[in-house]
Amino acid sequence: MVWYGWMDFAPSLVHESEVPLYRQLYQQFAVKIRSGELPRGERLPATRELAGLLGLNRTTVSAAYEMLEAEGLIAGQVGRGSFVTGHSVAGCPLGPGGVDWNSLLERSDMPPPRHSGGAPSGLGGEVISFEMSRPSSALFPLDEFRASCAAVLARQDLAGILQLGSPAGFEPLRRYLMEEARRQHLAGPGDDLIVTNGCQQALDLIGRVMLRPGDTVAVEDPVYPGLKNLLAGIGAQLVGIPVGAEGLDIAQLERVLERERPRFLVVTSNFQNPTGATLPLAARREMLEAARAARVPVVENDAYGDLRYEGEPLPAIKQLDENGGTVLLRSFSKVSFPGLRVGWVVGPKPFIDRLRQAKEAADLHTDQLSQAVLLEFAESGRLEAHRARVLQAGAERLAATLEACRRYLPANARWTRPQGGMNVWVRLPEPLDAGELLPRAQKEGVAYLPGRYFAVSRLEPGALRLSFAGLTPDQIRSGLAVLGRIVSGEIESASGSFEPASAMV
Amino acid sequence: MVWYGWMDFAPSLVHESEVPLYRQLYQQFAVKIRSGELPRGERLPATRELAGLLGLNRTTVSAAYEMLEAEGLIAGQVGRGSFVTGHSVAGCPLGPGGVDWNSLLERSDMPPPRHSGGAPSGLGGEVISFEMSRPSSALFPLDEFRASCAAVLARQDLAGILQLGSPAGFEPLRRYLMEEARRQHLAGPGDDLIVTNGCQQALDLIGRVMLRPGDTVAVEDPVYPGLKNLLAGIGAQLVGIPVGAEGLDIAQLERVLERERPRFLVVTSNFQNPTGATLPLAARREMLEAARAARVPVVENDAYGDLRYEGEPLPAIKQLDENGGTVLLRSFSKVSFPGLRVGWVVGPKPFIDRLRQAKEAADLHTDQLSQAVLLEFAESGRLEAHRARVLQAGAERLAATLEACRRYLPANARWTRPQGGMNVWVRLPEPLDAGELLPRAQKEGVAYLPGRYFAVSRLEPGALRLSFAGLTPDQIRSGLAVLGRIVSGEIESASGSFEPASAMV
Repeated sequence: MVWYGWMDFAPSLVHESEVPLYRQLYQQFAVKIRSGELPRGERLPATRELAGLLGLNRTTVSAAYEMLEAEGLIAGQVGRGSFVTGHSVAGCPLGPGGVDWNSLLERSDMPPPRHSGGAPSGLGGEVISFEMSRPSSALFPLDEFRASCAAVLARQDLAGILQLGSPAGFEPLRRYLMEEARRQHLAGPGDDLIVTNGCQQALDLIGRVMLRPGDTVAVEDPVYPGLKNLLAGIGAQLVGIPVGAEGLDIAQLERVLERERPRFLVVTSNFQNPTGATLPLAARREMLEAARAARVPVVENDAYGDLRYEGEPLPAIKQLDENGGTVLLRSFSKVSFPGLRVGWVVGPKPFIDRLRQAKEAADLHTDQLSQAVLLEFAESGRLEAHRARVLQAGAERLAATLEACRRYLPANARWTRPQGGMNVWVRLPEPLDAGELLPRAQKEGVAYLPGRYFAVSRLEPGALRLSFAGLTPDQIRSGLAVLGRIVSGEIESASGSFEPASAMV
Repeated sequence: MVWYGWMDFAPSLVHESEVPLYRQLYQQFAVKIRSGELPRGERLPATRELAGLLGLNRTTVSAAYEMLEAEGLIAGQVGRGSFVTGHSVAGCPLGPGGVDWNSLLERSDMPPPRHSGGAPSGLGGEVISFEMSRPSSALFPLDEFRASCAAVLARQDLAGILQLGSPAGFEPLRRYLMEEARRQHLAGPGDDLIVTNGCQQALDLIGRVMLRPGDTVAVEDPVYPGLKNLLAGIGAQLVGIPVGAEGLDIAQLERVLERERPRFLVVTSNFQNPTGATLPLAARREMLEAARAARVPVVENDAYGDLRYEGEPLPAIKQLDENGGTVLLRSFSKVSFPGLRVGWVVGPKPFIDRLRQAKEAADLHTDQLSQAVLLEFAESGRLEAHRARVLQAGAERLAATLEACRRYLPANARWTRPQGGMNVWVRLPEPLDAGELLPRAQKEGVAYLPGRYFAVSRLEPGALRLSFAGLTPDQIRSGLAVLGRIVSGEIESASGSFEPASAMV
C-alpha cells in the first residue's frame, strides 16, 4: 500500500470554509509538488483510497486530481494511478523577475477541466463514443443549409448583417423568436427576449447578473458538467435536488428552497441531461408553487424540448408561471447545428435588460452571420422539415438504446426511459464503479461519461450517461454489447476482489 | 433652484467603501424612488449641481443617473434635467409572493449602460454620427465575402464545421493564426493561441481567470467604455494611467505599478481608442521593463494594429517581451466585418489553457461558420486586398478629419494626430463641456461621444471622441463645420453665463 507514506502530509481541510474541499485539497497538493517536497515520479494514492482515508466524497478527490492534472503537475489515468510529473508548468518561460503565471493563476477560481469528449488517445480503430450529447453530423441537411446561406448572401441588407450589431441580437431574428414565443404562450406582455451564444452563454450571463462568489444556486443532481463548471467558476455553492425518473424530487426541493434560500433554481423541463427525465405536469406546478412561496426565480433550461419522440408535449414552466418568476432558455443547437452558437432567453423585461448589459460586456453581441442563416433556416420551413427527420432518427436511436440495455446489461442494472432528448442514464449494480470500468471499455473501443462528471452532492459510482443521438442503431447495439460483456465479466469476478466500502472509512 | 429641496435626503456616501460612489448614490436614490418618497414627476438636480453639492466628480453623479435611467426610475436628457418616472419597473408583473426581480438584480454589480451609439431619437433626417469606432459598411467587399462563403459551403468537412467544436477555436483557423503569429515573431515556442468572440471576449475571459472583486487593474486613461464596463462588472478597481499624444505616461505607470500592484495592465500599442495615440518604441521598452520589474502581466490590446495609414510599423510589445509576461489580443473585426465575432489571444501556454477552460464555461466555443469564412477570406488573399482599400479610405478620412478640425475648430482647441486607426481625440477650450454641447449638436444632426464615457480617474469636460472611419470625407467636413459653429457660438456667449467651477464646490 504505497499511499500510507502520504500520511506524512495529511492535508488539513476546513469543512466549513468558503473554499470548496476539492480546491483546498488541490492547493495543498500543488504547494507540495511545486516546492519539490513531492518529487517527480511519486505515485499518488488512488482517489478511492484517499477519499476513504480523509473521509471525503470520492468526487472531491477526483476533482482535485483533475485540477492538478490540468496544471501539468500530475499525470495518470483513471484506475491506473497518478504520478507527479513536475513542479512547474512546461512551456512557460520565466525570465528573472518575469511574470509568474502559475502563482497568478492559482488565485483564480476555475473549475476542474471538463472531459474533452474526444476519442480516447492511444486507441486505434473506430471508437463508439456515447460521450457527447449532440446531434449526428450525418443527419445535417447540408443542401438546406447551403440554400439558407445563399438566401442570406442575396439579402439587400447583407452589409448590415456584417456590421457591428446589437447586444440584444440580430433584430429580425429577435422579432421572429419573440413572435414564436408569444404564439406558443411562452412570452407574456411583460416579457422580452435576448439572443445568446447558445444556452451555455445564457446560463453564464444569468450567473453574472445574479451571483456573487459564495451565493447558493439550486440545481438538479445529477446535472450536466457545463453547468457545474460554470457555476463553480463564478464561485457559487451548488446544492443538488435529486432527479429521479419523474424529474425533480419536489419534497427535497421545498426543503432546499426553505433552508438554503438559493439565488435561483435551474431546472430542465424536458429530457434532462444526463438522466433524460421529464418533469410531469403536476410536478411543474408544485415546483412553481414552491419557488413562488420562497420567492426564488426559476431558470427553465429547455435545450431539448423540441426533441420529443413520444407522448404529448407538456406546457413549459414559463407558460404555467403566472407570477413572472421564470426565465426560459432555448436554443437552435440541439435540433440543428451546434457549431452555430445561437440560443435565446425569454423573461421579464428588467431582467432581460440586465442580461443585455452583461452580454455587451461579455462579447458585444452574438455572431450575426449565423443569426441570419438560422433565421432563414427557420422561416423557410427547413428547420421544421429537418426536425421531423431528427425526431424519426432520434426515436429509432432511443429505441435501439433501450432495447440494447435490456439485451446486454445485467438484470439488476437500471436505466431511465426518456420520451425524447439525447441521453439515457444507466445505473450498474453495486459494487460496480462506472469510472473504473471506463478504461477497459475504452480499450475495447467504447467510451461514455461516468456518473462523477454529473454528480453535485450525491455520487452514484455505478452511474453512467449514454448519449445516443450521435450514433447509429448499429453502433449503439455494438457499443452496448461490448459494455454488457465487460460489466458481466466484472460482476462474475467481483465479490472476491472488491473491498467493501466500509473498510475505507 | 429647485434642487435645494433635495438637501432633505443628503445621500450619505462612504468614500472608503468597496462599493463605488456612483453605486452608493444610485442605490440611495433608487430606495427613495421605489418607496415613493421621491414621487413621480419630481425633478432631479443637474449632475453638475449635485456633484458640486456633494463634493463628487461629475462623472460619478452621471453614472448614478444613468443607472437610475436604465432601471426606468428616472428619465431625462443631458442638459435638460431628469425626472422621476416611477417607483417600479414597467412591464414586470409581480404577483403576490412572486419574485422581486428589482431587488434581486439590485445586488448585482453591473456597470451603468453604455451609450447606445445609435442615431439620436426624435431627430428627423440624416445624422452624421462620429459615435462608433467601426469600419464603414459601404466599404465591405460583399462579392469577396460571398465568394469566401461559397468556398466554405463547398468544403468536404462542412458537416464538421456545423458540429460542436473546440473551446480553443476552429482548428484550421487556429493553426493558420498561430503560423502567422510565429512568422511575425508574435508567438514564441512557449506560446499558444485561442480564438475568442472578438477582443471584447478576450478581455472578458482574461478578467474571469485573473480577477476577483476588489482586485486592481491598470488601464489607460481615457480608455474605451467597453473595457471600463467589463471590469466594473467584475467588480475590479480601475486605476488610470494618463495617455498623451505619445501614449502612456511611463513615469506615472511606474508609480502605479509600484504602489497599487495591479493584477495586470491593459495597454493599446497602436492607435488607442479613444485618443488614437501610438506607444513609441522607447516607451514600449520602458513599459515592459517597468512591468517586468513589478512582475505585472501586460495585456496588449492591438485591435487596430492593421490600420496604419502612415509611418513605419513598430514591433508589438509581445514581440519585444523576452520574459513571457505579455499576452497579445488581435481581431478581424476592425479590418473586415465586425458583425462576425472573431478575435484571438496569443500568450504563454498555461495562461491560454486557463482561458480555454473559461471560454468553455462562458459559451463552449466561438461560432464555427464565421471562423471558417474568415479563414477562407484571409487565406485566399481577399483580406489583404480588402485591407489595402481600407487603408486608403482610412487615410483619406483621417486627413479629412484633421483638416476639418484645423478649419472649423477654434484656435485654442487641441486634437491628436493619429497615424492610423479610427479615432481622433479633441479637447475643446475651457470652460466648454462637450457633454453639455452634445444635445445642441444632435439637434443639428451631429453626434459624438463626450469625454466622460472614456474617463477613468481624470475627467476632461472639454474632451470628445471623433470616430471617423465610418463616415465619408464629405460627411466628416459637414459634421465638423456644424460642430465648429456650435463651439464658436458657445465661446462667444460663454464668459457671462458660465459659473466658474470654483463656485460649485
